[in-house]
Amino acid sequence: MTLSSDRVPAIDWRADHLALLDQRCLPDTEQYLEYRDAPAVADAIAAMVVRGAPAIGIAAAYAMVLSVRAHRAGSASGWRDAVTADMNRLARARPTAVNLCWALARMRRVLEGAGDKNAPTAMEIEACRIHAEDVAANVRMGEIGGELLASDPGDVMTHCNAGALATGGFGTALGVVRAAHRRGLLKRVYAGETRPWLQGARLTAWELVREGIPVTLVADGAAAHLMRQGRVRWVIVGADRITLRGDVVNKIGTYALAIAARHHGVRFMVVAPVSTVDATLHSGEEVAIEARSAQELLEFRGVPLAAAGASAWNPSFDVTPAELVDVIVTERGVVQHPHETGLSALLDGPAGVPLL
Amino acid sequence: MTLSSDRVPAIDWRADHLALLDQRCLPDTEQYLEYRDAPAVADAIAAMVVRGAPAIGIAAAYAMVLSVRAHRAGSASGWRDAVTADMNRLARARPTAVNLCWALARMRRVLEGAGDKNAPTAMEIEACRIHAEDVAANVRMGEIGGELLASDPGDVMTHCNAGALATGGFGTALGVVRAAHRRGLLKRVYAGETRPWLQGARLTAWELVREGIPVTLVADGAAAHLMRQGRVRWVIVGADRITLRGDVVNKIGTYALAIAARHHGVRFMVVAPVSTVDATLHSGEEVAIEARSAQELLEFRGVPLAAAGASAWNPSFDVTPAELVDVIVTERGVVQHPHETGLSALLDGPAGVPLL
Repeated sequence: MTLSSDRVPAIDWRADHLALLDQRCLPDTEQYLEYRDAPAVADAIAAMVVRGAPAIGIAAAYAMVLSVRAHRAGSASGWRDAVTADMNRLARARPTAVNLCWALARMRRVLEGAGDKNAPTAMEIEACRIHAEDVAANVRMGEIGGELLASDPGDVMTHCNAGALATGGFGTALGVVRAAHRRGLLKRVYAGETRPWLQGARLTAWELVREGIPVTLVADGAAAHLMRQGRVRWVIVGADRITLRGDVVNKIGTYALAIAARHHGVRFMVVAPVSTVDATLHSGEEVAIEARSAQELLEFRGVPLAAAGASAWNPSFDVTPAELVDVIVTERGVVQHPHETGLSALLDGPAGVPLL
Repeated sequence: MTLSSDRVPAIDWRADHLALLDQRCLPDTEQYLEYRDAPAVADAIAAMVVRGAPAIGIAAAYAMVLSVRAHRAGSASGWRDAVTADMNRLARARPTAVNLCWALARMRRVLEGAGDKNAPTAMEIEACRIHAEDVAANVRMGEIGGELLASDPGDVMTHCNAGALATGGFGTALGVVRAAHRRGLLKRVYAGETRPWLQGARLTAWELVREGIPVTLVADGAAAHLMRQGRVRWVIVGADRITLRGDVVNKIGTYALAIAARHHGVRFMVVAPVSTVDATLHSGEEVAIEARSAQELLEFRGVPLAAAGASAWNPSFDVTPAELVDVIVTERGVVQHPHETGLSALLDGPAGVPLL
């Protein structure tokens, strides 16, 4: 499934296989890798060929389609156990983003309800639905977040990449940026380069340049200085997991931005679909924070950067407590000052409760 | 002049020429470049062959020795004008650190008081004195800062490189770290990698590994998360210029650390010799902040990192207001809570030298 809005989609379902844009190689080369079995997709998620909380959920859903096709074809009985093994492997590929398990849970429910014969088709439809719903959620969040910027226009700082590359398309934080830019509500986006993986420099800059939205990179440590100069009105980021009390788990460096934003009276907006909310957790302190290899800091493309003998601490995410978040935007509406109310109301009732 | 404490000194005066350890090449290679005239030293300072506020002052002082030797030998009259031209060129090599102009002012005063015949010798003695006094100041600040850690021991976060490489030897912030480590007051140093130039990863890690002090690198954006985990008791940094009210101009990223430190109740210590205090300025907002090339962010060793078409904002320093500084350590003593008293009292004693 290639969505027309994206000339270079991160995730391209091609009916008989899954193609993933290799985000490790951007912006140098736009290269797709092709996947025909689920374990290979799990490895791709772990290696960050595809990354971004919504995107890895979608990729895992398509991997489940591949899994069902492969195992159902191979043996008349016991194929569901083999699919379950693939699912467990996918679930373990990365620990922090909840969307991965959320998407797998949706796929499992469909599988459980499907007969042996129609399981492949039912799974493919569900994966495409997850994908399409994510894009629709992003477009809706763009509209909602754009309204927030309309009431308080100004330039935006973002972190990591919460764009089309991190999602099914359009993006969460960058979806709001796109919508606001179309409406003339912002002139420039400041992107933190986002060490160590440089998602800001490599991915967000790539997306925004293609879109014609002026983008200025800053070192992560320069963001507070930028805010002191009054250059940004909003910090807008995505999320990998949001707890019921409104704590936001997102790319390492987000928490520092939230502290600096509060210090300067800059507003802090989190944009994420409801699938990012983990209804089983109250506090962000309970979330498993992925520790990635020290080599990401100690080397650059295999070339040693740091003195031999130095160690490195490389948590991939941090927790921004709800108290530092001004507003959370979801496709179901917004939660202002989440520390006052939490997110339970968002999860209750029919999909579409407007909280704005 | 090679100080015995340093096996690999940043600045090595070799009687007939000046040798500078090329800090652009660390930690890969320990390579010295040799200088025999002042304009070449000015270029080396601008290119960051040598960097760190005290170190560039010392290098400039030695460059003045080379200048006097060259021009006095060349012509009987008018040689002092040629020296003045060199001095002005050195003063313009980098704009933010005040130590550069401070050292040149000392050299100029000696030159003005010296006869044509003894000028070269008088200048060499003064340059070596500036160098030796800087080391002595660092050792003294190590003792004083060590006492502060003795009253409140714990692990330390530092930023950029305020070590032997940034000074005549021993270091300012890392001098305190060295002294405190010898006394068993800290077990580990967390070093921010300090994008874009990676002084933390390349220089601070190199110094601390050689010294046998355990060092762990963190991405600059991870420092707040580190503080939230309670892993550091102190942030200790150097300074490039300190104003009379106690505002601290230092490497970009320092301000963000100061905000995060205050947010977490982590103590924030600035270590700098009195030569770093600019008695002509009240507020840090008046200091010229050097803007370095966008290429430092957009490329890595000549290889493009970011998407073509992205711009970058690359201020080399930021301003930490006195209100966020818990204590300033100088060789003349400490100023606790500088926003309450400023630094005037510190300058009132002897040894005051007017700025260039």
